[in-house]
Amino acid sequence: MKIYGKNVLYEALNANHKIYEVYLRDDVYKSDTSFLDKLNKKNIKVHVLDKHHMNQMFDGLNQGYGANVENFYDYSLEEVINKEKKQLFLILDKLNDPNNLGAIIRSCDAFSVDAIIIPKKNSVGITDTVVKISTGAIFYVPIVTVSNINQAIEKLKKNNFWVIGTDASANQSIYDIKNDCNLALVIGSEGYGISPLVSKNCDYLVKIPMSGHVNSLNASVSAGIMISALVNQSETK
Amino acid sequence: MKIYGKNVLYEALNANHKIYEVYLRDDVYKSDTSFLDKLNKKNIKVHVLDKHHMNQMFDGLNQGYGANVENFYDYSLEEVINKEKKQLFLILDKLNDPNNLGAIIRSCDAFSVDAIIIPKKNSVGITDTVVKISTGAIFYVPIVTVSNINQAIEKLKKNNFWVIGTDASANQSIYDIKNDCNLALVIGSEGYGISPLVSKNCDYLVKIPMSGHVNSLNASVSAGIMISALVNQSETK
Repeated sequence: MKIYGKNVLYEALNANHKIYEVYLRDDVYKSDTSFLDKLNKKNIKVHVLDKHHMNQMFDGLNQGYGANVENFYDYSLEEVINKEKKQLFLILDKLNDPNNLGAIIRSCDAFSVDAIIIPKKNSVGITDTVVKISTGAIFYVPIVTVSNINQAIEKLKKNNFWVIGTDASANQSIYDIKNDCNLALVIGSEGYGISPLVSKNCDYLVKIPMSGHVNSLNASVSAGIMISALVNQSETK
Repeated sequence: MKIYGKNVLYEALNANHKIYEVYLRDDVYKSDTSFLDKLNKKNIKVHVLDKHHMNQMFDGLNQGYGANVENFYDYSLEEVINKEKKQLFLILDKLNDPNNLGAIIRSCDAFSVDAIIIPKKNSVGITDTVVKISTGAIFYVPIVTVSNINQAIEKLKKNNFWVIGTDASANQSIYDIKNDCNLALVIGSEGYGISPLVSKNCDYLVKIPMSGHVNSLNASVSAGIMISALVNQSETK
């Protein structure tokens, strides 16, 4: 697949993601010699393009850096479940904004979330925009795509995960949840929240306590607050 | 100014923001009779447009709802400082993405932040996109634009505010900060963080503890985590 953006290409290289070929804008080719050295050491083919052709081939936000790389590996649940350690998964129930998915992947890397589970259908997938918005964090976070979120939840429960849904009308606060066992946090879609059946299958429903007028958060902000509250709670309790 | 989006127009009406005229797409005009009733009660002029003209006049994400409204009031620092209560302000140091500003305004409403301070220059301002992304939260959060962030910080300090900057390399965690006095939280720009002089003028520098590879968060996610950590800390301490 095609990817673009300076940080994205840097991280692709850092993470040893398979890069087929790199496209650099002529000025970047001349100025970023240390990146070029690294590419040469790995024998990665480099094409030099002018701005016009670069922007034809990649989104306008490419910053002069583009590449053709191996598709992201589609993990299975079995591959990401590790019984040797306490894990935190994130389940995204029909998220549809690539900006939100990219920002969430970035947060998941920052807080060492062990995997992100997304449905195959009715959800934004891993596009070049998502990769860009993740600023390369996607190379470090396993993504599992599943045919059915509810079946995935069942499987997680059998593997000793507690499944926590987010719901503005819940009584319990995310700050009440102890991060002392395997947890899977479900984030709903931007417009509609968690679907009713998924909500029913959660072990707990929690909210982020709010006090304003509109009282809803951007999906990626909401996910970030929840994850940080869980992983940083040893600092707060 | 022009604004668009269903929730945005609903909140403009709820918040009694001065609406000069409303533009509805023909299908919305027929179906959303309760909104139309409210507009009629307030004697607000309504224009009906077909999809083509609606999308010419407003961004494609208008959802069939647009309006021409009074510009947002530009508060002064003096107007938002209230010595009778403990306050929380947010200072945005040269943020440049309207999506981030919109999401941050949404978080500020949700957590009852008392005001947002942005510089007049080198910063995204209140555009129709910002209003849309805020989902109408902007009608409830006072925005102060200032010529000079550092002068604003000085003024806040004189009014018994502690000014907290965010810096990935800080020793102190946001979870160490007690929300028991007037606080102004400074969020840096997307690419460069807080500018050196602003950073120097902060009373404290704090970080969000992270453990990943890329270790940076989207600016609106970072702001949301910080604000929630402060306002919900009575739940966690």
